[in-house]
Amino acid sequence: MKYSQTFIPTLREVPGDALIASHRLMFRAGMIRKLSNGLFAYLPLGLRSFRKVETIIREEMDAIGSLEIKPPVVVPGELWKESGRWDSMGEALLRVKNRLGADFVVSPTAEEAFTSLVRNELSSYRQLPLFLYQINTKYRDEIRPRYGVMRSREFVMKDAYSFHAGDASLDEHYRAQGRAYRRIFKRCGLTVIPVRADSGAMGGSGSEEFMVESEIGDNTLLLCKSCDYAANVEKAECKLDYSPRFSEDLARSAAARTPALEKIDTPDVKTIEELCEFLNTQAKNFIKTLIYRAVHVELDLSGAPGCKDLKKHRPAPGAPEVWDEAFFAVAIRGDLDVNEAKLAAALKASQLSLAADADVIRITGAPVGFAGPVGLDTAPVLLDQTVTGMSDAVTGALEKDKHYRHAAYGRDFTGWLSADVRTVKAGDRCPLCGGELYEKKGNELGHIFKLGYKYTKSMGVSYLDENGKTAFPIMGCYGIGLDRTLASIIEEHHDEQGVVWPVSVAPFHVIIIPIKYQGAVKDACDSLVRELEAGGLEVLLDDRDERAGVKFNDADLMGIPWRIVAGDKNLAPDSPRVEVKRRTEKEPRLMTLHAAAAEIREAVQRELAAGRE
Amino acid sequence: MKYSQTFIPTLREVPGDALIASHRLMFRAGMIRKLSNGLFAYLPLGLRSFRKVETIIREEMDAIGSLEIKPPVVVPGELWKESGRWDSMGEALLRVKNRLGADFVVSPTAEEAFTSLVRNELSSYRQLPLFLYQINTKYRDEIRPRYGVMRSREFVMKDAYSFHAGDASLDEHYRAQGRAYRRIFKRCGLTVIPVRADSGAMGGSGSEEFMVESEIGDNTLLLCKSCDYAANVEKAECKLDYSPRFSEDLARSAAARTPALEKIDTPDVKTIEELCEFLNTQAKNFIKTLIYRAVHVELDLSGAPGCKDLKKHRPAPGAPEVWDEAFFAVAIRGDLDVNEAKLAAALKASQLSLAADADVIRITGAPVGFAGPVGLDTAPVLLDQTVTGMSDAVTGALEKDKHYRHAAYGRDFTGWLSADVRTVKAGDRCPLCGGELYEKKGNELGHIFKLGYKYTKSMGVSYLDENGKTAFPIMGCYGIGLDRTLASIIEEHHDEQGVVWPVSVAPFHVIIIPIKYQGAVKDACDSLVRELEAGGLEVLLDDRDERAGVKFNDADLMGIPWRIVAGDKNLAPDSPRVEVKRRTEKEPRLMTLHAAAAEIREAVQRELAAGRE
Repeated sequence: MKYSQTFIPTLREVPGDALIASHRLMFRAGMIRKLSNGLFAYLPLGLRSFRKVETIIREEMDAIGSLEIKPPVVVPGELWKESGRWDSMGEALLRVKNRLGADFVVSPTAEEAFTSLVRNELSSYRQLPLFLYQINTKYRDEIRPRYGVMRSREFVMKDAYSFHAGDASLDEHYRAQGRAYRRIFKRCGLTVIPVRADSGAMGGSGSEEFMVESEIGDNTLLLCKSCDYAANVEKAECKLDYSPRFSEDLARSAAARTPALEKIDTPDVKTIEELCEFLNTQAKNFIKTLIYRAVHVELDLSGAPGCKDLKKHRPAPGAPEVWDEAFFAVAIRGDLDVNEAKLAAALKASQLSLAADADVIRITGAPVGFAGPVGLDTAPVLLDQTVTGMSDAVTGALEKDKHYRHAAYGRDFTGWLSADVRTVKAGDRCPLCGGELYEKKGNELGHIFKLGYKYTKSMGVSYLDENGKTAFPIMGCYGIGLDRTLASIIEEHHDEQGVVWPVSVAPFHVIIIPIKYQGAVKDACDSLVRELEAGGLEVLLDDRDERAGVKFNDADLMGIPWRIVAGDKNLAPDSPRVEVKRRTEKEPRLMTLHAAAAEIREAVQRELAAGRE
Repeated sequence: MKYSQTFIPTLREVPGDALIASHRLMFRAGMIRKLSNGLFAYLPLGLRSFRKVETIIREEMDAIGSLEIKPPVVVPGELWKESGRWDSMGEALLRVKNRLGADFVVSPTAEEAFTSLVRNELSSYRQLPLFLYQINTKYRDEIRPRYGVMRSREFVMKDAYSFHAGDASLDEHYRAQGRAYRRIFKRCGLTVIPVRADSGAMGGSGSEEFMVESEIGDNTLLLCKSCDYAANVEKAECKLDYSPRFSEDLARSAAARTPALEKIDTPDVKTIEELCEFLNTQAKNFIKTLIYRAVHVELDLSGAPGCKDLKKHRPAPGAPEVWDEAFFAVAIRGDLDVNEAKLAAALKASQLSLAADADVIRITGAPVGFAGPVGLDTAPVLLDQTVTGMSDAVTGALEKDKHYRHAAYGRDFTGWLSADVRTVKAGDRCPLCGGELYEKKGNELGHIFKLGYKYTKSMGVSYLDENGKTAFPIMGCYGIGLDRTLASIIEEHHDEQGVVWPVSVAPFHVIIIPIKYQGAVKDACDSLVRELEAGGLEVLLDDRDERAGVKFNDADLMGIPWRIVAGDKNLAPDSPRVEVKRRTEKEPRLMTLHAAAAEIREAVQRELAAGRE
């Protein structure tokens, strides 16, 4: 293709709102333009690379037997009401009323649409498993879209959904998707960090996020220096930093060795630091207790302290009761922080926040700062696992300016529930191997997830199993954001001058730059284009009437893997040569036309094949 | 691909709302499913053919140098307000407010998005012409979506937009698009009727619709039995059925030969039929006069009769004035009907309707039924060209129970404006060759259209021309509905048993049916699949454990062009044979495996190549 016949409006300036390399370079290289905040148009150069990412994903989905379909982008709100997400999805869901007053949704994902389609077709276990996917437009009404196509409102997602008659079949396809994802990202030239929802030490994993390291990442990751453990901080675990592990026997004997519980005056001592100084002790010997307010709690609170009069309701006939609002005292070692995502999961609560002062006073009978597990019977006490088994601890005495010391688990306090709700941080120890954990910021490109029965049960999808009994299929879902994947490739593959495309997703394989597109130079270039294109290569011929420097800069900016420069100087009739250079190389080499074409073709084919291995 | 590993839920039943063959067959063959009224999902089989239509369109657009881009589907309402279509588009436009209260549109077409993109990039005439297109999701909020994907709410459209520095360049690309459209439809196996907006007799055409004949078509077409004239009834012209053509001289001498105007009593005579009987004459000697109310009239009415006090406003600074509401008397030969689309175009009015009785009485000074052009000075009189030059006519006398006879153009009446506003109907004469016209119902698949400056002027797109002066680019737009094209292929290519795909858009080229997929039959089928796929053919192997009759019926329903049946009976080791049959043939032929593969490969390649010629 000739440059003069395409539309690649390259720019020197950087738009003010382009904070990251991929946004800057996609804009400058004429790959994208902004139509509005969070809404982008791909121009021809950008679309070429976008389509290559799309093709890689499609090939890998097809290879594991997933079947492409094309549901509509705009779907009936009714389906979202059936699944419950019409209410739970919040404001990121773009809702539309049409002229007849019917509700619609501009799809942000498509669990409902796929589940609805399968519901109408499924009757027998013989039809399962069923693996379906789409590559289609999605919309999420981000409040603050930014970073170009990395976090836009409209985007394209590959989303696959699988339906199975049982866990074993789901496991098998889930693993196949995991392998396909690794191949997709490898073929795109991306270094991803697969992050499991749990450590893997505690049984099968039901969720794996594929992250790329990114300074602007939404996610904090904990990685192990010694093994391949990687976790989102929201779910990261760590080894307890004491041993041996807790047992009730050990707790009892520790309590027996501990002096009796003693209430002490701590006047004007507000913070843990002041208390440590006052008592000449360390934060890790302290039990910090926080009062949390939780909303929509699915955990059964029947008989829990202080919960007798709480309001509850049954969301659907046959479903378990849900508590509208409940308060919890959460006790954790004084040097650690509570991870609210883990706490919400432990409580099965949909929302969580620190209680208001008035609620703290009501529950602890004291001003803020004197909560503690000893004698607290107005709310359920949740002990972080660092507190379970603790002896000789300092903690609040539920009374202004009073603390306890020598508090021992089992003797002086117990909890209503014990769980791991600790925020893991750099320096903590890997739950798998005990190695040191470190932090990275990460951006999620893909997510594979065992959905379970959430949609098939709420939307009433059933089949007759081998015994003729009605059963619900179990589901998995598997998403990749295409725009974000493309931007992440640029984040990983660029330098000061521009993009440095991996061959697999480069918009063109070769750019040919005539110093001046006329005479012998034109003939040489045209002949190279013919030879390269005959070999299946994609060639951009920069036939513009621009200075060589401008063309070189644009070639570097666009990041095309191979560059051929043809000028009169090297095209002497007896020994015509052109300059050949990879985007990654500093200096060009002089080669005959045929040798140049042969070397590039061979290299491109080798690199494309290597990705597929 | 094995049938057992794909998802083709064929059905015997026909859904009750499927009124046309394509809807019935796409549903029964498992190509589509309905998610909601007007919203369809393509299943794997349907998507394969859909993608082939898409590829054909993309190849032909690329071949004429149009460049693919990908703007968002959801676009800012602001752009639509700039172009004026936010108001003028009506309720078919799906409008959305996002969480921040900003207006958005789910694109039904994309003039605004493309114009906005080009506006930001264009500075010099050197950048023109620019040809851009997309193949993307569209939404139109049809009140009554029906006929499956033929008239759905969400659909996919190829829409191209071109920008030019002058008419000659637009003409050239417009013609290239016209040729590309003819190739696209030919490759899809479609018989289209290209319909020009005007006859071509009156200079260059600025609009061409590509229609397919359809019993459920929205459009009435007039076609000539003798030449290739084809027009939408909204714009169809015809030869006047008298000759020679009108001239003022001829009119004067005809008037001179006509007896003097005479007012006659016509008591209790209401209809033209009654009047013809009463006066013993024919409807074609009568001048029928209708009073129309027009809204938003762009035609200059300064100085027109009865228009002095009408309200008018200037929509934008520098724009011409527009009359909010005006009334017109439209005179046409008594045996003809007024075509309101042509009338609205002649008046440059955005809306048109027959005036209310009170307005008729006010304007004509008589009850309904006595309007006529003689002496009418309370409204502009528009004479259809059948009335211009008419002599010795009967017409209303603007008085109850009174008519004139011997009314002659020029002597007794003239018009404020003369135009062709007649509804052309079957039996009228072709404006090009005089041949007889006949009617067909048609469905529009594509439309190419010279847009002019509408968007570049309203949205302020300009460039500096060769002389350094600011100029507006002129635009063309070119659309094809993909879903409707696919459905129309089925409408044209089906029989009682199912679809009969042209090779170019068939979901698979060959279906192989083993009577029972085991033993020697399985080996033969597997070997055929390998040989056919190695030759680039797309093969569906029906490995289901179903009766042969079921498989045959499904193969016919799916419409795959070639069928191979393998059974033990014909696979004797000394002379193994399979049955080969085209979808269009009645009887299969026995052939060796290799001969079958070779014949089919050769035929498929030949047919694909023929389409590309």
